[in-house]
Amino acid sequence: MSLDAVLARIDSDLPAATDRLMELLRIQSISTDPAYKAECGKAADWLVADLQSLGAKAEKRPTPGHPMVVGHVEGDGPHLLFYGHYDVQPVDPLELWDRDPFDPAIEETDAGRVIRGRGASDDKGQLMTFIEACRAWKAEHGSLPCRITFFLEGEEESGSPSLVPFMEANRDELKADIALICDTGMFESRVPAITTMLRGLLGEDFTITGPSRDLHSGMYGGIAMNPIRVLTRIIAGLHDDTGRITLPGFYDGVPELSDEILSQWQGLGFDHASFLGDVGLKDPAGEQDRTPLEMIWSRPTCDVNGIWGGYTGDGFKTVLPSKASAKISFRLVGTQDPNAIRKSFRSYLEGQLPEGFSVEYRTEKGSPASQMSIDDPAFEKARQALSDEWPDTAAYIGCGGSIPIAGYFKTITDMDSMLIGFGKDDDQIHSPNEKYDMESFHKGTRSWARILDALTR
Amino acid sequence: MSLDAVLARIDSDLPAATDRLMELLRIQSISTDPAYKAECGKAADWLVADLQSLGAKAEKRPTPGHPMVVGHVEGDGPHLLFYGHYDVQPVDPLELWDRDPFDPAIEETDAGRVIRGRGASDDKGQLMTFIEACRAWKAEHGSLPCRITFFLEGEEESGSPSLVPFMEANRDELKADIALICDTGMFESRVPAITTMLRGLLGEDFTITGPSRDLHSGMYGGIAMNPIRVLTRIIAGLHDDTGRITLPGFYDGVPELSDEILSQWQGLGFDHASFLGDVGLKDPAGEQDRTPLEMIWSRPTCDVNGIWGGYTGDGFKTVLPSKASAKISFRLVGTQDPNAIRKSFRSYLEGQLPEGFSVEYRTEKGSPASQMSIDDPAFEKARQALSDEWPDTAAYIGCGGSIPIAGYFKTITDMDSMLIGFGKDDDQIHSPNEKYDMESFHKGTRSWARILDALTR
Repeated sequence: MSLDAVLARIDSDLPAATDRLMELLRIQSISTDPAYKAECGKAADWLVADLQSLGAKAEKRPTPGHPMVVGHVEGDGPHLLFYGHYDVQPVDPLELWDRDPFDPAIEETDAGRVIRGRGASDDKGQLMTFIEACRAWKAEHGSLPCRITFFLEGEEESGSPSLVPFMEANRDELKADIALICDTGMFESRVPAITTMLRGLLGEDFTITGPSRDLHSGMYGGIAMNPIRVLTRIIAGLHDDTGRITLPGFYDGVPELSDEILSQWQGLGFDHASFLGDVGLKDPAGEQDRTPLEMIWSRPTCDVNGIWGGYTGDGFKTVLPSKASAKISFRLVGTQDPNAIRKSFRSYLEGQLPEGFSVEYRTEKGSPASQMSIDDPAFEKARQALSDEWPDTAAYIGCGGSIPIAGYFKTITDMDSMLIGFGKDDDQIHSPNEKYDMESFHKGTRSWARILDALTR
Repeated sequence: MSLDAVLARIDSDLPAATDRLMELLRIQSISTDPAYKAECGKAADWLVADLQSLGAKAEKRPTPGHPMVVGHVEGDGPHLLFYGHYDVQPVDPLELWDRDPFDPAIEETDAGRVIRGRGASDDKGQLMTFIEACRAWKAEHGSLPCRITFFLEGEEESGSPSLVPFMEANRDELKADIALICDTGMFESRVPAITTMLRGLLGEDFTITGPSRDLHSGMYGGIAMNPIRVLTRIIAGLHDDTGRITLPGFYDGVPELSDEILSQWQGLGFDHASFLGDVGLKDPAGEQDRTPLEMIWSRPTCDVNGIWGGYTGDGFKTVLPSKASAKISFRLVGTQDPNAIRKSFRSYLEGQLPEGFSVEYRTEKGSPASQMSIDDPAFEKARQALSDEWPDTAAYIGCGGSIPIAGYFKTITDMDSMLIGFGKDDDQIHSPNEKYDMESFHKGTRSWARILDALTR
């Protein structure tokens, strides 16, 4: 009954809510470019004022980089923390935009109305869905339904250098019962989803040195071992013929999916032929006994992100190079231990080096996977709330990428995260002509109202 | 008697001869890079003028690429053709040079005086040994000892694209009794040598395309096949565990050595441990049932000269690249057919491509191996002349590299070639800090004077 009133207010307030988002989108808060430092501060100020209008005790908190925005609303019931980020990606190549990226507009398209502009989807439009839901709730009820901490970052698009130190220094203040993160999308632009599985990442960037200098393949070819030959053998040996990764112990800690999740994923009707066909591919490359969705959400991977060695310019140079290099990354799942895998990889690599060869590593940090424990009833409540709002039933899904903030909430503040977002596959985030569907903004706001209701009822 | 005068003049003229070489070394005649086209022309002009100073009718002859320099001196007795090349290899990686590669200098080293600079050994220093021998001869005698044709190329380091058409178009002009080629080295930097066995060369420069665009490994990693993974598998599969090349039909036409040559080579006492140890290596990489000298002189090889794909800059980018590329070369021996091997390689490669993948070849010419018939008495005369100049007796040897010109002299102008050069193993040709020993330059010049004398006496 009271939820209906909140939803009705969201509907009637949509034009004003859109105007507010437009204001925020006009602020050029590109975090990676120092030229936009003042604009980042301006976006933080705008959000502080907006949170204060909800009755939050909000402030801009300095960091060595761009400020954090932290706001608190007291209340009973569960303590929720909401995370989003107010910074945006650079806009180049500017000539590919059909309009000024910071002069947002509503456009009518064949697929419906969209809000066009840098940050419309990533992440200003998304974070405002939660704030607008709170605003409507407060307007109807006079207060928010529970204790809420708002935590808005300004460095997400530039590697979050201040995030971990800030969280560690403010651990108690940021500790809540659960974190809500609005920076993800809907499954196949259609099915509302809670992302409960995020792969971790381990990178190895290394150079193998064989001969002490570049050699002429006429003089040394046949007798001198070529480091590219050694490197390709190492890389080729990382997968067996069935697509399985061969490193000893690699699959330690890789869980099997529950039958429930497996059947939920089967129910999603993922069309891998079209997913791959869109980028000119045909056959799934992963372990042959796994489904395509498992390959990208719940199975670990090994990819070469870069390789180089010898002469790579125009024409031919019959050099037998001294060095060969590669950047390899592993996506991790379950409780796979980045350190153990790094050790296994290096032991395998070094075992393949001929005598006289050496390897130099340029160490990359590793982060383990995150897996939310969906036993917490909050997850089922939120899933039901999402299902009530959208035509399709909401699903628990995985995410092939890494969203480090979810890991930090777990390791620093011991919170699980609910990653709920309304982005669509064609939002063109990080690209020219970024947009956010008006449907995402409107029904996203309604979704959060339903979730607030479900979590506090 | 008259030879002694020529040798004495060579000795006294050495400083001036060195200055002339320095002038030539300062010209940046990198043939593979179009940015240096004018410099190649300049080197050709310099040589035309220098040959004219010897009384040759010399001119720069245009080709679709860099010009040829052709000069003629009339005379009686045998008609000799001398071949060298004025172009040089690129200089990268520039940061590994201890000096500007095109600002050559004489350096005192523990092993004696060296001329340091790109092209000092390959091939400007070498070609000038013959020209300086002619200069001294003319200074003493007023004319050269026989009819000589000079033929200097400017595209040797970039695959000689104009060579065959030019030779075919000027077959009669270039036909002599025998060709002298100065582009090889001394055996173990010590034994003067006539190279009578040259490996051929087949290059493949290609790009594999998988996904139609670069992908994010978070979204596609595990399901999308990575072209670098495909490429490394292709390359790793080219050799088996015993070092043998796996392409079907690859060893067709590879001859076994005669017992006589085998025992001559064994007599050379080649110290492969020190040959490899000098460049930081230990175990011979070739077929495990072959001797080290066979691996570099009489067995075919396969080497990767370059490989590249994905992100190769600083830091990490979790890209799953659309393309991966490599430059692969095969050294050929006996009657191995470059075209048949190209076909076999491409068929193997294409058989390894997943559906949806494609390959683009940037075709490189292939050249078969060459073997000289040392029955011509000129070979024995030259070998004696070399033995007179150096402490060690001269030997007939093989050469791992490919000097296609020797093959063309045979097939196009029906001439055998005497490959005589004074390069040393540590000359670092094709590498940073290339050098030519002053001893090579000086005694090389004296050697040619002795050979001219021996062939025309």
